[in-house]
Amino acid sequence: MRRFIVVSNTASTEPFSLKDLPGSAGRMDVVVRCLNTAFFLSNDLRRDVEVLAVLLGPPDPPVTLRVVGAELKYMNPDERNIASLINHALMKGASEAERRSTPGIYISRRGFEDALSEEFILLDEDGEPWHGAPEVQTFLLGDQKGLNAEQMEYARERARRTVSLGPKHYHTDHCILITNYLLDRETLL
Amino acid sequence: MRRFIVVSNTASTEPFSLKDLPGSAGRMDVVVRCLNTAFFLSNDLRRDVEVLAVLLGPPDPPVTLRVVGAELKYMNPDERNIASLINHALMKGASEAERRSTPGIYISRRGFEDALSEEFILLDEDGEPWHGAPEVQTFLLGDQKGLNAEQMEYARERARRTVSLGPKHYHTDHCILITNYLLDRETLL
Repeated sequence: MRRFIVVSNTASTEPFSLKDLPGSAGRMDVVVRCLNTAFFLSNDLRRDVEVLAVLLGPPDPPVTLRVVGAELKYMNPDERNIASLINHALMKGASEAERRSTPGIYISRRGFEDALSEEFILLDEDGEPWHGAPEVQTFLLGDQKGLNAEQMEYARERARRTVSLGPKHYHTDHCILITNYLLDRETLL
Repeated sequence: MRRFIVVSNTASTEPFSLKDLPGSAGRMDVVVRCLNTAFFLSNDLRRDVEVLAVLLGPPDPPVTLRVVGAELKYMNPDERNIASLINHALMKGASEAERRSTPGIYISRRGFEDALSEEFILLDEDGEPWHGAPEVQTFLLGDQKGLNAEQMEYARERARRTVSLGPKHYHTDHCILITNYLLDRETLL
């Protein structure tokens, strides 16, 4: 199974307006597009992918959404639809114990360190170049501003490896798609 | 310069509601995401990219939007923002002569055949595998339903080559990102 851990230090931890994902929802649009690129194939969903979206924005962090491709329903590729599913989960509210919001979408109070409890690859521009599918297929990515200094130090110490998709600097959601594509190619060759 | 020609047989040719891009706007969300993946880098825009979005949906086709990275302003990566720029162009209205709507976005009455007046590569699942950057860097892609039979026949006859990004079937916007990524790697190596 492939896993993507997306950390957003700004994304809203309370329900938000679907009209203003970048502004009042704290760049929730980035998280939304990450779910698009993690799961969507043409007329299909990637059933072997799981995403942890760690939301650390105001007013009530941490909140973690766990999105499970094998169970996912009702998700369309447009931002407004995906955002409405996230909103639904935030309306349900996060508790210590993980709870299901809609099929394939779970919400809990887990935070950054909880998300890194298993082995992972840190995707970062300063990493070594991608040379074939890594031995671990859990990937950690920051949001539009990247991990903060403290998170980065914590992640670097624990990451199995740090890998760069280079040569350009890509958006987080684009990095997920590129990773999916590279793994598709290398797994099937 | 890289060029992407995106053909949508359903996308609205009149102003639409930003609340319903997939429905009443005829899958305008697909066109919008294609502009995202064509142009956005982290904190940067791809100035060497141009997109032709050929809109063939009701009520008044054809309309072609030409989006020029070198001149582009006011575009943010979220769907609602990009859609509002397209809406602005459609409100201005299309005439035979191309006119500028906002910086980098032009609208005209050009149609499918006009868009294929220069050499291009057809991106299609049935094509030959991608083996290095093609000699022509103009790429033709269909929308969520692909080109119709007549368009496909026209395109196949004129395409310099037909290339597949395989091995999976990707969304149109994802194909653009993968192509950008492959060209980034191969151009800089």
